[in-house]
Amino acid sequence: MNNADSPWIKTISLPPPSLQDNTADTERLISALRTTLQTDAAIHIDFDLIKKLPDILRQNDFNVRCTLFKDVYQWLVVGIQGASEKRPVAGLAVDLGTSRVVLRLLDLTTGQTLAESGFDNPQLTIGPDILSRIHFTDSSDGLTKLNDLIITGLNNAIKDLCQSKMMEPQDIYALAVAGNTTMTHLLMGLNPRWIIREPYIPVVNRPGILKAAELGLQLNPAARIFVFPNIGSYFGGDMIAGILFAGLHCASDTAILVDVGTNAEVVVGNHNWLIACAGAAGPALEGGVTKMGMMAGPGVVDKISIDPPTREFDLHTIEDNAPKGICGSGVIDLAAQLYLSGMLDIRGKLIPAVCGKRLKKIDGLMHLVVIPADQSASGADLTVSQADLDSLIRSKAAMYTILETITMSVGMELKNLTTFYVAGTFGSFIDPRSAITIGMMPDLPLASYKPLGNSSLGGATLALTSEDSLAEINRIRDRITYLELNVNQDFMNRFSAAKFIPHTNAALFPSVKVKPDEK
Amino acid sequence: MNNADSPWIKTISLPPPSLQDNTADTERLISALRTTLQTDAAIHIDFDLIKKLPDILRQNDFNVRCTLFKDVYQWLVVGIQGASEKRPVAGLAVDLGTSRVVLRLLDLTTGQTLAESGFDNPQLTIGPDILSRIHFTDSSDGLTKLNDLIITGLNNAIKDLCQSKMMEPQDIYALAVAGNTTMTHLLMGLNPRWIIREPYIPVVNRPGILKAAELGLQLNPAARIFVFPNIGSYFGGDMIAGILFAGLHCASDTAILVDVGTNAEVVVGNHNWLIACAGAAGPALEGGVTKMGMMAGPGVVDKISIDPPTREFDLHTIEDNAPKGICGSGVIDLAAQLYLSGMLDIRGKLIPAVCGKRLKKIDGLMHLVVIPADQSASGADLTVSQADLDSLIRSKAAMYTILETITMSVGMELKNLTTFYVAGTFGSFIDPRSAITIGMMPDLPLASYKPLGNSSLGGATLALTSEDSLAEINRIRDRITYLELNVNQDFMNRFSAAKFIPHTNAALFPSVKVKPDEK
Repeated sequence: MNNADSPWIKTISLPPPSLQDNTADTERLISALRTTLQTDAAIHIDFDLIKKLPDILRQNDFNVRCTLFKDVYQWLVVGIQGASEKRPVAGLAVDLGTSRVVLRLLDLTTGQTLAESGFDNPQLTIGPDILSRIHFTDSSDGLTKLNDLIITGLNNAIKDLCQSKMMEPQDIYALAVAGNTTMTHLLMGLNPRWIIREPYIPVVNRPGILKAAELGLQLNPAARIFVFPNIGSYFGGDMIAGILFAGLHCASDTAILVDVGTNAEVVVGNHNWLIACAGAAGPALEGGVTKMGMMAGPGVVDKISIDPPTREFDLHTIEDNAPKGICGSGVIDLAAQLYLSGMLDIRGKLIPAVCGKRLKKIDGLMHLVVIPADQSASGADLTVSQADLDSLIRSKAAMYTILETITMSVGMELKNLTTFYVAGTFGSFIDPRSAITIGMMPDLPLASYKPLGNSSLGGATLALTSEDSLAEINRIRDRITYLELNVNQDFMNRFSAAKFIPHTNAALFPSVKVKPDEK
Repeated sequence: MNNADSPWIKTISLPPPSLQDNTADTERLISALRTTLQTDAAIHIDFDLIKKLPDILRQNDFNVRCTLFKDVYQWLVVGIQGASEKRPVAGLAVDLGTSRVVLRLLDLTTGQTLAESGFDNPQLTIGPDILSRIHFTDSSDGLTKLNDLIITGLNNAIKDLCQSKMMEPQDIYALAVAGNTTMTHLLMGLNPRWIIREPYIPVVNRPGILKAAELGLQLNPAARIFVFPNIGSYFGGDMIAGILFAGLHCASDTAILVDVGTNAEVVVGNHNWLIACAGAAGPALEGGVTKMGMMAGPGVVDKISIDPPTREFDLHTIEDNAPKGICGSGVIDLAAQLYLSGMLDIRGKLIPAVCGKRLKKIDGLMHLVVIPADQSASGADLTVSQADLDSLIRSKAAMYTILETITMSVGMELKNLTTFYVAGTFGSFIDPRSAITIGMMPDLPLASYKPLGNSSLGGATLALTSEDSLAEINRIRDRITYLELNVNQDFMNRFSAAKFIPHTNAALFPSVKVKPDEK
């Protein structure tokens, strides 16, 4: 392994001490590292390692392997072993989601992925969303409980993940965690109380690098944890990780990055500027709203097409299991297909004459049977109600209005965007054609749409594989201008205009055309 | 209290957060501190304080008192309280001697001394000197035992010292410790094994700032400890503290600073350069060599004069108690007075014809009765033997040769030195006239001799009372050129020449004249 290949692992031969060169062990190592790293920056060696240094140096004839991590201002030496040491040196990238936590174990020598795993955020037992968890911290020990849940969850998952690769948690020297502002606060045991109370103030914007042990994480005792910075209560480190992963901040062309959930978080920018905002897009875009709505998983409908002449439904379920529900991207497909097949009007209302026997009244409310009882996993009809569809229309209108607002704020139009990055699971499942059809996303060429996958995890991975990432992340954070969404009359007017399929101004969506024979 | 008066305590009113300014609590405080301190340097807030920050800020309407400490590269926030907080903010300067530990409690608001105390280094129970203690660390748990002894000793002394001022150890936020390289290693629990083994390598030269709690010190949980840097195994932080205290590094005139013990540690320099060396001066200059020798204390003879015509001894004891022994400075006085009264020849041999009945043969060896049995505290004769005096002559010759060597190394002569600083208790007690008479110190005008008192404690105090001290201390350390004493033929020749009273070359000591009638 060439030293130059690995930013974090340096094998060094120190000049042995002599009467002519009686520099102490610590400063001898620092001086050799300074030469190897070609740096004038401060180099910090953990005191616990300094204690062991005399023996390590002399037992290995002054040939050692150092494991490093780099803060913005200084290099940190987090491991010192004999040069012949063969134990792996690993890092862990973490996407700390409100619902799901995903881990990626990395070989810090090569930067390559060794293994991945995920688990449901154990804080779900306290509350499904940010709001309910923050309210739980009002109770005595509430914060401690939430903090314990995620730390224990991580420790267990890390142990299992390491075991799967015949490694031990102490082989992990560096963690990078990207998550929303509340999740990172709960991870660090910081009181999130003021995040949801006006004027919405986090405890910290730039947590930087902490000792993992200080948070109760059981890794190498010297391991460091880098927590991605946030811009505020509603624009978190997961989005900064996304910008880093997409490379939005490096491109000369202006692109947009959207993460869709209960909140839509949006960044527009290029190598010169970055502008961000976050707004309530409505829960219809996540699972959990329609009675049959759920998170993506086996048996969940993720794709729907309706054959216009016959109005037969063609459903695709994840892993092709019997259908048991529908996820956000499925709902968008459904609405687009209902509209294109003439079953839904431009206001998003089901047209009884066209829907025919697929319509049922349940508790006085109009429902569309998507999957009849005899085909569903549960043996009961899977339906969406008119209310579900109304909610979707409001959500997609909010989303579109937010996208319009942020691009307008920099004097651009949505059509000027060269790339439209969609983050997260939602981004991977969504069919951009359907999203354009219902007018949730702008009518850009389909090739402009780029699903990013787990960009939060991707950004966290980058933080661990390049020595300049942390400085770059700080630069990204500091360059972002946060646009406070001002829900004024203009916004409301544009929101109303967007509450149609695809939009009251059809000229904005030239590609969306219902074939005449289906009208 | 004006903020500007106190480098470590800043009372700050933060602009309260608003929708227009939603900076997080931590960064809000950092930003306000940056303005107050007028600095671009990094500002680090302990994570434990960040956890408490939201409550502290809101309970005090965003008016807080911050306690700071400063590393070379960054400011450290070690305390955050309400602006109206009245609890004292204290620091502790420590002179960590091999034999004695001295503490000075400081008000960090004013820089003034609140109280002082001292205790015998509890490691004396293991061994009287550096060598015996380092050998003790070869035994299992030896290092742990020595470390525990000094940490426990400090914790107890700190508790008592605080109690005497109605304070608590948690009111102490910063410590500065100056001591020799071995003592500081034992304090930090660092293995001193290689300090006494060729090529004499300490574990660390620049320990810098550590968390006091990490060393087991029970102070404020965030308290920091600054350990003075060393130049090597035999030139410790106590000497760097001495240079800082004497201001040797600031003056345009060249001065010398000498600390006399088993080793003589010497620095010569000015604002342009500093050169240092250390050498075995022989134990005769400390207590503990002659049978009656002891450390300075009540009843110990510290001044002797002999009336030349009558050869009557006039003794002074510390606190005027009945004489029970003699300290180093007393021995030097004695030798000088014996020589001036004609009882000692230029080789340092007692002259029986002149000493008369004061001479006694004990175990076949010539002894001089300094205090007859009927006047001594013990009721037995207090004597010095010819062997004791021979040892003193070797020690003083070694000392003089070292002083000569270091000044020669920079092309100077001893007579060119404008100030001769003598550090430590020895420096306070020694009569420079006597030291010149026996040729231990050069024949400079008496006004050139400046006793520094506890310059190690003085330097440690300075480290806590000025925000630039730590950087200045590092600069001093880095400017020092260490001269490895090369005991070659030239050195041995000069050593032989110095083994006479005052010297074979009487022209070097024009002021030393035995009056003709006493010859």
